Amino acid sequence: MRFARDGWCLAAEGQTLQLHHVPALFSIGNGFIGTRGPGDGADAPRVYLNGVYERMPIAYHEAAHGYARETDLRLAVADATRPAILVEGQHAEAASSVTLDLTRCVRAETVRAGGIDVTIEQFVSMAQTALVLTRVRFPEGKDVVVTPLVTPPPGSEAPAIAEPQSDAIYDPRIAPTLADSPWRKLDLRAGPGIAARADRLHRSGFVVASAMQEIGRRSVGSVVEVDFVSGYRAARDEPVLEPLLATLTAAQAQGYDAMLAEQTAWFADFWSSSTINVPGQPATELAIRYALAELTMAVGRDGKTSIGAKGQTGEGYEGHVFWDADLYVLPVFAFTHPAIARAMLAWRISGLDAARDNARAMGQTEGALYPWRTIGGHECSSYFPAGPAQYHINADIAYALETYLAATGDRTILDQGGAAMLVETARIWLAIGYHDSDRDDAFVINRVTGPDEYSAIVDNNLYTNMMAARHLRFAAREGLALSLIDAAEAARMVRAADAMFLPFDDARQVYAQDDGYFALDPWPFADTPPEKYPLLLHFHPLAIYRRRVSKQADAVLAVALLPDAFSDTMRQRMVETYEATTTHDSTLSASAFATAAARAGDGARAAHYWRVAALTDLSDLFGNTDHGLHMAALAGSWTTLAMGFAGMRVEGDTLCFNPVEIPGLPEYRFSITYRGAPVEVTVSGATARVSVRGDHAVQIRIAGIDVAASPEIQSARATVS
Amino acid sequence: MRFARDGWCLAAEGQTLQLHHVPALFSIGNGFIGTRGPGDGADAPRVYLNGVYERMPIAYHEAAHGYARETDLRLAVADATRPAILVEGQHAEAASSVTLDLTRCVRAETVRAGGIDVTIEQFVSMAQTALVLTRVRFPEGKDVVVTPLVTPPPGSEAPAIAEPQSDAIYDPRIAPTLADSPWRKLDLRAGPGIAARADRLHRSGFVVASAMQEIGRRSVGSVVEVDFVSGYRAARDEPVLEPLLATLTAAQAQGYDAMLAEQTAWFADFWSSSTINVPGQPATELAIRYALAELTMAVGRDGKTSIGAKGQTGEGYEGHVFWDADLYVLPVFAFTHPAIARAMLAWRISGLDAARDNARAMGQTEGALYPWRTIGGHECSSYFPAGPAQYHINADIAYALETYLAATGDRTILDQGGAAMLVETARIWLAIGYHDSDRDDAFVINRVTGPDEYSAIVDNNLYTNMMAARHLRFAAREGLALSLIDAAEAARMVRAADAMFLPFDDARQVYAQDDGYFALDPWPFADTPPEKYPLLLHFHPLAIYRRRVSKQADAVLAVALLPDAFSDTMRQRMVETYEATTTHDSTLSASAFATAAARAGDGARAAHYWRVAALTDLSDLFGNTDHGLHMAALAGSWTTLAMGFAGMRVEGDTLCFNPVEIPGLPEYRFSITYRGAPVEVTVSGATARVSVRGDHAVQIRIAGIDVAASPEIQSARATVS
Repeated sequence: MRFARDGWCLAAEGQTLQLHHVPALFSIGNGFIGTRGPGDGADAPRVYLNGVYERMPIAYHEAAHGYARETDLRLAVADATRPAILVEGQHAEAASSVTLDLTRCVRAETVRAGGIDVTIEQFVSMAQTALVLTRVRFPEGKDVVVTPLVTPPPGSEAPAIAEPQSDAIYDPRIAPTLADSPWRKLDLRAGPGIAARADRLHRSGFVVASAMQEIGRRSVGSVVEVDFVSGYRAARDEPVLEPLLATLTAAQAQGYDAMLAEQTAWFADFWSSSTINVPGQPATELAIRYALAELTMAVGRDGKTSIGAKGQTGEGYEGHVFWDADLYVLPVFAFTHPAIARAMLAWRISGLDAARDNARAMGQTEGALYPWRTIGGHECSSYFPAGPAQYHINADIAYALETYLAATGDRTILDQGGAAMLVETARIWLAIGYHDSDRDDAFVINRVTGPDEYSAIVDNNLYTNMMAARHLRFAAREGLALSLIDAAEAARMVRAADAMFLPFDDARQVYAQDDGYFALDPWPFADTPPEKYPLLLHFHPLAIYRRRVSKQADAVLAVALLPDAFSDTMRQRMVETYEATTTHDSTLSASAFATAAARAGDGARAAHYWRVAALTDLSDLFGNTDHGLHMAALAGSWTTLAMGFAGMRVEGDTLCFNPVEIPGLPEYRFSITYRGAPVEVTVSGATARVSVRGDHAVQIRIAGIDVAASPEIQSARATVS
Repeated sequence: MRFARDGWCLAAEGQTLQLHHVPALFSIGNGFIGTRGPGDGADAPRVYLNGVYERMPIAYHEAAHGYARETDLRLAVADATRPAILVEGQHAEAASSVTLDLTRCVRAETVRAGGIDVTIEQFVSMAQTALVLTRVRFPEGKDVVVTPLVTPPPGSEAPAIAEPQSDAIYDPRIAPTLADSPWRKLDLRAGPGIAARADRLHRSGFVVASAMQEIGRRSVGSVVEVDFVSGYRAARDEPVLEPLLATLTAAQAQGYDAMLAEQTAWFADFWSSSTINVPGQPATELAIRYALAELTMAVGRDGKTSIGAKGQTGEGYEGHVFWDADLYVLPVFAFTHPAIARAMLAWRISGLDAARDNARAMGQTEGALYPWRTIGGHECSSYFPAGPAQYHINADIAYALETYLAATGDRTILDQGGAAMLVETARIWLAIGYHDSDRDDAFVINRVTGPDEYSAIVDNNLYTNMMAARHLRFAAREGLALSLIDAAEAARMVRAADAMFLPFDDARQVYAQDDGYFALDPWPFADTPPEKYPLLLHFHPLAIYRRRVSKQADAVLAVALLPDAFSDTMRQRMVETYEATTTHDSTLSASAFATAAARAGDGARAAHYWRVAALTDLSDLFGNTDHGLHMAALAGSWTTLAMGFAGMRVEGDTLCFNPVEIPGLPEYRFSITYRGAPVEVTVSGATARVSVRGDHAVQIRIAGIDVAASPEIQSARATVS
């Protein structure tokens, strides 16, 4: 793999640096601040802050009742991360090399200026989320000026002209452009060794303070080192600039080296609880480590933010958070860094009132419906057939909560709003579904969109119905236990779950993706040349909806998440049936297929899809990594390994494994945290060894065999029938 | 009925004049110019020109491939129809009375100014479509100044501020407001006795010339009469102002009285071929005559325009032409004034290339798909689930062509583009439907929207499939006869028509509106208070789509149009079944229910719905007549009488009647033109008498009995089993 220097270091130089996706690929961040790597133009958006957005009206030519009226638009902020570098009066040229050291997530660039090499070492502090640290090195004795610089928010100086969208291709995955800058300049500071500014997003009211300060300068041998601290602070109702400057002063006192040590320690701890080893395959190791690192650098940890589809690594999707935060990303953290998973749930819980509002807008008089896309909590989707119609988001959040509980045993989350969220979201199913007397009182859920956005507004989406049934049972159980619902309501939930209609195609002997899926004319794949993919950019939505074609794993995702609901042969039949009609135009597809294939015992197919997930961004497989890294694909590369290949899941209180042999992957090792216990898993072929460090009583089951629940090495031969 | 003075005159005065819908109700026009009646504010839009529109970009927050990029927005033009009237320096007050004489479509207003009454008599010339004639009368010996006046196009003087849409209700049936005026002033003329101007719509390029000239002034007894001619001319690529002024000069030479005589003669001829008599019921007579008059004053007769959903009587629906032009309005003219029906078809034929473009945008590589809404010919719908997804428009146009051929026998329309249009539109069915091997090779048409916009993106909409089958057979027959298609293609069309899938509900023993209609949870009518109607203004579209509820007759429309495809009992069962789930939130619903009920022999139900259709505008039953008259409801009041009550239809070359007894309507008479022959129909109870004037051999069948095809009175007793 092109960027792998070894199992821990991503590197690019020469031609490789010209690749379109390098700026996104070398992004670093800390869950609040994100800053892209080298290669973008000087004025290009570069720095994003998680949870900081403008509120923008949504334009509709034909609007209707209940439509989202405004969107949260995440905008690039002032760039306080690049000091000005002048060598003999010349600006630095483009970077000639860049590395990203994943052991502590420090990025190093070399730029050439005035005939000399200048290196820039930079990291975004995980320990102090307001801060970015930068060390610039250059040979002594040259005319080098290195000073703090804060460039204004992109587009804020001159009103940007909204370009009419070109005749070429509408790409709904890119954020719209704005006719006028929403930024208002509040304050500017400049002094010796410091630059700072404050800008206000005038509709949302966020004030963003951005600053950079020189905090050290010395000669080391024949090299001059200059250290900078950059900082960001954003808030709506409190001062930000002065507190930020105080933070910078404190950072100056601490010094670059101490903060680098802090960063090193943070990541040492991080990697110890999320080890990945693939003996003899450094590039594979790197890909999974890269995924974990970038997820961690993107995800909010403050309970007030979560993780956008692209993190803070690009403009894609307006910075919005979607279901993949809950369903793809959260399970990774639930088993590796549970505090992060908990913070993600806390963010969802904080959005419960907005979700209630959304349910009312959608016509449900009870319950809460989480927004399909949002930052601040309100629905921001302007196209409901592939937005609010995706009611499955409620079940996805419930699944995330259930996964968190299974992995951690931390039931306090239920008392702290989790149970209320669980119950309110479950009520939606009773509001939109009903027992159909024409179908023997089966509980049917009509007119929703499943994860497959190439099949919109369908009846009885298999994934939705299966996940809703699980959601209803979970809510009934916990809601009743915590006295949030009465017995009658719990009984209604259980009755709906028990009677849930699952569409089945008798001719093909598989579950149907929805009631009408197999009644559709198959997509003419033979007549569709490669340049016509992804279909969404080349065909009218209705032309796609009319055909039997899936953008992504939908029914297969049900197999991946709920493998026990399907027989062995059914799992395989599902994978093969839907593979024939899936374009994988979504980056969320590959890991679900990989996991489902593994659970079907089809290691070769699983390995293929796993590679797609793992290389989605590293190899820019979809050609749009430049818009930002695909967080779901990154997460999927880890969950495929753990849940798919190793077959990890929790049954009751027992941590279970059931590995399947994966061609080309004779051995791998990963560590997780299970109910507070550090657990190491080593898989060789179809054999798992599981060890628990420390004094924890953990129940382990491997390939269906309970093994000693004690901190010793446990092993069993796994077989997949 | 409040406005009926007698069977020929609509009148309002006093409180009645304050009613919100008076300005639209007293609209007059000539198919090119339309001008609203009294009651609007001084600056309100008042004059519209058929076929004159601006091209405006359509804003999408999330766009997709194939979406319409621009819309045709019909805008009010300069008002050259109201002379300035000053009495002792005072402007005239609001009108104190208004009448509309339908014998010649002359409107008379009385306004009070400076203590005296001034009357304004006005008509829009049917004979000379550029002209509006006005005669002002006032008592002699007063200080009265009456001069020509042309006020600028609404909104063109100061840029209008686009109001953010209120928090109240989004009404998609109203045109959007514009941020900036699209008008550019080109020329202004003012002189003694004349005012004129020319304005340009800067994106579409239409130049509109508007002028008013005094053409006569005299004393008649103690009354002064001042005559004006107003004129409009619009074009894109030719001069308009000078030719218009020349036309006014010619009009001056002709004089007001001569032009009024011309108008009187035009309408005398008009009424002689579209007589309506309901003995002893002047209000009912008036309602149907009003419908015919307003339709005729709205419909374009030049082959370059058609009829918008609201004609030229208001802002509604951006002035767009929809399917109701073909399916509701055209049959009226096909049987009364065939030249108008032919002109409407010519307009459709002229849009064939744009329809081909639209088919490509929607992903069909063959055939033509007519736009759901348009003025200039291109698709202007920005919401495809209730727009371009309504593929039935193609079949509706084919039905209109078939109706025209049946009524007139004029096959020259086929050679002049009609057959090409017929074949190209039929090809769409082969492109979007297919023979489903899972359903015994039935031809299925998935993912379309039927006329019922409360059930979007459904499979096998009954109406669509039945109409498509008829369309395919018609296209195969004529396409083959005229060598436009080969035998193989014709065979494909016939095979699809023969195998057309018609959804049937075994439990209810009725045809289903679509595959999934009866699988939906019934709408909770009991929990829906009256103020929550129409549903579209109070519920999210998806909340409506999810329920078993129809905005308008959909399956019932199939019964109305194709009664012979259903048994007697099935017709009644269809009406009763769908009545239970139809809100009639569309003004297109009532006449279809009325016709279907009549065809089911249910005269009482038919009478009820007929009254709704006939009074939709006269009694402002939907509360939005102010946005413009509902042309489809007006048309439906006539077609219900002829096709529904009298059971008129053409079988082969035979004109058939099959009247059903209608409570409260013991006798009615109407005249039509059938294959060039003037035909008078008198229905008494369930007995029809048909007479043919002149020397025409017409085959007549009454209640299934062939009667002498000669110009004598024919009669038979009709029975409905």
